[in-house]
Amino acid sequence: MTDLLIKKARILQVTPHTITTLEAHDILVRGNRIESIQPTAKADESHFKQVIDARGMLAIAGLINTHAHVPMVLFRGLAEDVNIVDWFNEMWQLEANLTPEDVYWGMLLGIAEMIENGVTAVADHYWHMNKAAAAIEKAGTRGLLGWAMFGSQGQEAIDKTARFVQDYHNSANGRITTILAPHAPYTCDDDFLRAVAKKAQQIGTGIHIHAAENQEQTQNSLNAHGKTPLQVLIDTGVMEVPTILAHLCGATDQDLALLQRYPTSVAHAPKTYLKLAMGFAPITELRELGIPVGLATDGAVSNNTLDILEQLRLMAMIQKHRSNQPETMPLAEALYIATQGSAKVYGQADKLGSLEVGKLADIALIDLSGTHHQPLYNIGASLVYSARASDVQTVICDGQILMRDRQLLTINKDEVLANVRAGMQRLTQKVSGVQIQIYEQ
Amino acid sequence: MTDLLIKKARILQVTPHTITTLEAHDILVRGNRIESIQPTAKADESHFKQVIDARGMLAIAGLINTHAHVPMVLFRGLAEDVNIVDWFNEMWQLEANLTPEDVYWGMLLGIAEMIENGVTAVADHYWHMNKAAAAIEKAGTRGLLGWAMFGSQGQEAIDKTARFVQDYHNSANGRITTILAPHAPYTCDDDFLRAVAKKAQQIGTGIHIHAAENQEQTQNSLNAHGKTPLQVLIDTGVMEVPTILAHLCGATDQDLALLQRYPTSVAHAPKTYLKLAMGFAPITELRELGIPVGLATDGAVSNNTLDILEQLRLMAMIQKHRSNQPETMPLAEALYIATQGSAKVYGQADKLGSLEVGKLADIALIDLSGTHHQPLYNIGASLVYSARASDVQTVICDGQILMRDRQLLTINKDEVLANVRAGMQRLTQKVSGVQIQIYEQ
Repeated sequence: MTDLLIKKARILQVTPHTITTLEAHDILVRGNRIESIQPTAKADESHFKQVIDARGMLAIAGLINTHAHVPMVLFRGLAEDVNIVDWFNEMWQLEANLTPEDVYWGMLLGIAEMIENGVTAVADHYWHMNKAAAAIEKAGTRGLLGWAMFGSQGQEAIDKTARFVQDYHNSANGRITTILAPHAPYTCDDDFLRAVAKKAQQIGTGIHIHAAENQEQTQNSLNAHGKTPLQVLIDTGVMEVPTILAHLCGATDQDLALLQRYPTSVAHAPKTYLKLAMGFAPITELRELGIPVGLATDGAVSNNTLDILEQLRLMAMIQKHRSNQPETMPLAEALYIATQGSAKVYGQADKLGSLEVGKLADIALIDLSGTHHQPLYNIGASLVYSARASDVQTVICDGQILMRDRQLLTINKDEVLANVRAGMQRLTQKVSGVQIQIYEQ
Repeated sequence: MTDLLIKKARILQVTPHTITTLEAHDILVRGNRIESIQPTAKADESHFKQVIDARGMLAIAGLINTHAHVPMVLFRGLAEDVNIVDWFNEMWQLEANLTPEDVYWGMLLGIAEMIENGVTAVADHYWHMNKAAAAIEKAGTRGLLGWAMFGSQGQEAIDKTARFVQDYHNSANGRITTILAPHAPYTCDDDFLRAVAKKAQQIGTGIHIHAAENQEQTQNSLNAHGKTPLQVLIDTGVMEVPTILAHLCGATDQDLALLQRYPTSVAHAPKTYLKLAMGFAPITELRELGIPVGLATDGAVSNNTLDILEQLRLMAMIQKHRSNQPETMPLAEALYIATQGSAKVYGQADKLGSLEVGKLADIALIDLSGTHHQPLYNIGASLVYSARASDVQTVICDGQILMRDRQLLTINKDEVLANVRAGMQRLTQKVSGVQIQIYEQ
C-alpha cells in the first residue's frame, strides 16, 4: 500500500536554462519519499492511504527559505522607516524581552505563514533554538537550525550551541538539521570566529553567518582591520567548513573571486536590501562564479513577510535593473535559484529542490487559474512574476500533508495567534540601556 | 431609506505625514455617495437596503490605477526577458491582431483582476475604447479612458478620438470620464502633438501620454531635436492642459524644475521599470516640487499583474534605495500617494481617494487577520509591506457592491475566461512585417 497519490498534476521541471512541464502526471509517495512520477492512468485509489486530486494544479518542489529569523514575526512592523543603525539597536533592545516560550509561538506563527506560501524548509538563525526545534517538530516542516551567538558571549556560547548542533542534528525523522551560527564579523571578534571555526571542524558541521551586509560594513572592516568582512572570515578559518553567507551586498569584486575557493553559498533576501537601503547583492556575478545562491526572507521586521515568492520576483527584477539589461536572469534561471539553488544552500540538493523519484516528498500545489495568471501562455512567467502566496493550495512535507486547500492541518492558527497576541505588550517594552548587543557604524 | 450600511469597520485616514484609524465605525452610503461616517451604534438595520458586517476589516478608499493598458492582459507572459526595443516591436506585432471584441473581453478580465486587489478606477490608455467603456459599464468600476493614437494616424485619429472623448465623458452615471491619448513624443511628431494640444483646448479635456520612459529616449530626443521629451511636450503646448505623464524615468533635473509650472501629474509603475531595466523615476523629487504622483500598473505584458498593492511597496522601497536612506518615503507618504495622490492624477481628488462624507462611495474592505499581518502592531506597515490582493475581501464602487467576500458580483469570470481563451491562438499569430508601429532606439 502506497501512502499518498497526487493525481493529475502538471509537474514543473527546471534547469538553469529551461522550464518544462509534465502534463497530467501522478506523483506516488511512499513514506517520506517520491516513489514514482508517471502519466496519469487508471490507478486503483484503494491502494493509497490518501489521494489528492491535483487537476489544474502545478506541482513544484516545496520551497526553501535559506536565511531567516522566523520568530522575529513577533516584532513585525515595529521598526519601520529607520536607518540600519537604529534598526539593529531597536531590535536588540526588544529582543532583550524574548522568552523561550515566545520563540516557540513566534516560530509556529512564522512557519504557518511560510507553509501558506509553499515553504517547507527554513535555515533559521535565532535564539532558544530548542524551542524552534519543538515548533518544527510540531509543524511537520524542515529546519536547518543555528543557535545565534555574539562574540561577547565567549567560549561558553560556542560550547552550548555546539551541543545543540549535536543533540538536534537529524532529529524529527531527519527533518531537523543543525549548524553553528555566529552572528557576524562585526559582532564576533577574530578569536571568537577562530574558535567557532575550530569547533565546526571538530564536530563536523557548517557555519551560517551574516557577512558584508552593506558597503559601510565593508568599509568599517577595512578601516578597523585592513580587511573586508569576507577576508576576515577566510583568515579565521570560518570559510573552511560549509558556510551560508547571508546578504553580501557589501562584497567587493576581490571578495567574490576569493569565495570560489571555499565550500560556501549565499542566502539572498532582496526585499530587506531595498527596504533598508543596503545596496544590491551581486547575484549575477556569484552565479557566473558557480557559487550557489538561494532565496531568503530574512526576518519579518526588515522584510515584513516571510514570502519567498516575493523574494523570487524581486531577485530577478533587481538583477535586470543592476545590469541595465532586461535579458538578465531569465525565468528559468530565477526558478532554478528558487528551487535547486536554495536546496544547495540548504545543504540538501540531493534530497530537495526538485520533484524526482527518490527525493524527499516536499511538494507544493499551486493554482494558476486566478485572473492574475490568465490567459496562461507562460507558466514560468506566472510563477516568477504573478504568483501570490494565496495561489498555494496544498503543501506536503516529508510525505505529510501540512496544508490542504488552504487549511493548515498541523498548526492550530487560533491557538498560535492567541499566544502571540498575549505577549504583544510585554514584548514591546523598551528598558533603557537593556539590549542584547549594540550596533555601531 | 439609506442604501448601504457598512458596519463596525476600522477606517483608514491618511495625510502625507500621519496614519490614523477610526475604530468601530459605520459607513452609511446613500446612492453613490458616503452620507455619514459615525461610531458604530445600535442601528436599525431594517432602514438599509443592504448591510455589510465589516468587523475585523480595514476600510480604505477604493484604489486607483493611474496608467494602464488593461486589455493587454490578453498577451500576459508573451514578452519576457527581452530588451525594450524587442518588447515594443513584439507587442506592436501582436496588437495588429486585436479586434474590438478582444478589447472588451480583455478589459473585463483586467477589471476583474483589479477589483480583486481593491482597484475601483483606472486611467486606461488603449485602442477600441468604446469597447473598454462597455466593459467598465458592465463591471461597475470607473475609467478615465483615452483612445490611443500614433502620429502616423494623422488628424483623422485626433478627430475620431476627440469624438470619443466628447461622446463618452461622464457616461455610465459619471463613472466614465475621458481624455486624449497620444502615445508618446517618440511616436508622435511635433505637428501632431501641437494638433492634439489644440484639440484638447478646444474640447476642454486633458492629455494622457507616455513621456521620458528611460534615459535612452531622452538622449535620442536630445540628439534628434536638441530637446528632451518633456521640453517637446512643453513646446508643442501639450503641457498647457491637464496632463498625466506616464513613467518619467528619463526626466532630467531641468525637466523637473520646468514641470512645476504646468497642470501636470505623474503615473508611476515601478515593477515595469525594474523588469524592463528602465531606471528609476524621481518620485521623491517630484513630491518635493509638489507635483502629484499616483500609482500605476502599466500593462500586464511588462508588469505581469494589475496589482496596485505591489506597486505601492515597490515605490516606497525603491525610493529608499535610490536615496540610500531607509527613512525616505515613510509609510504615511506612501499611503498618501496610493490614495489621494492617485486621485489627484486621476483628476478627481475632490471625489475619490479618501473615505469622507460627501465623497463617492468607492470602498475596499481589507482583512488584516492573515498570518502575514500578525501580530498587528502597525496597520500602515501591514498595508504597505504585507498586504496582498487576496486580503481584499469586499469592494464597492459608486455605492454598488462589486465583490463580496472575494466573489465578483458584476463580472461572470467563467464567461470572460472562456472568451479570452478562445482568442489565445489567434492573438499570438505574428504576421511578418505587420505591426501597428515600429520602435527604434
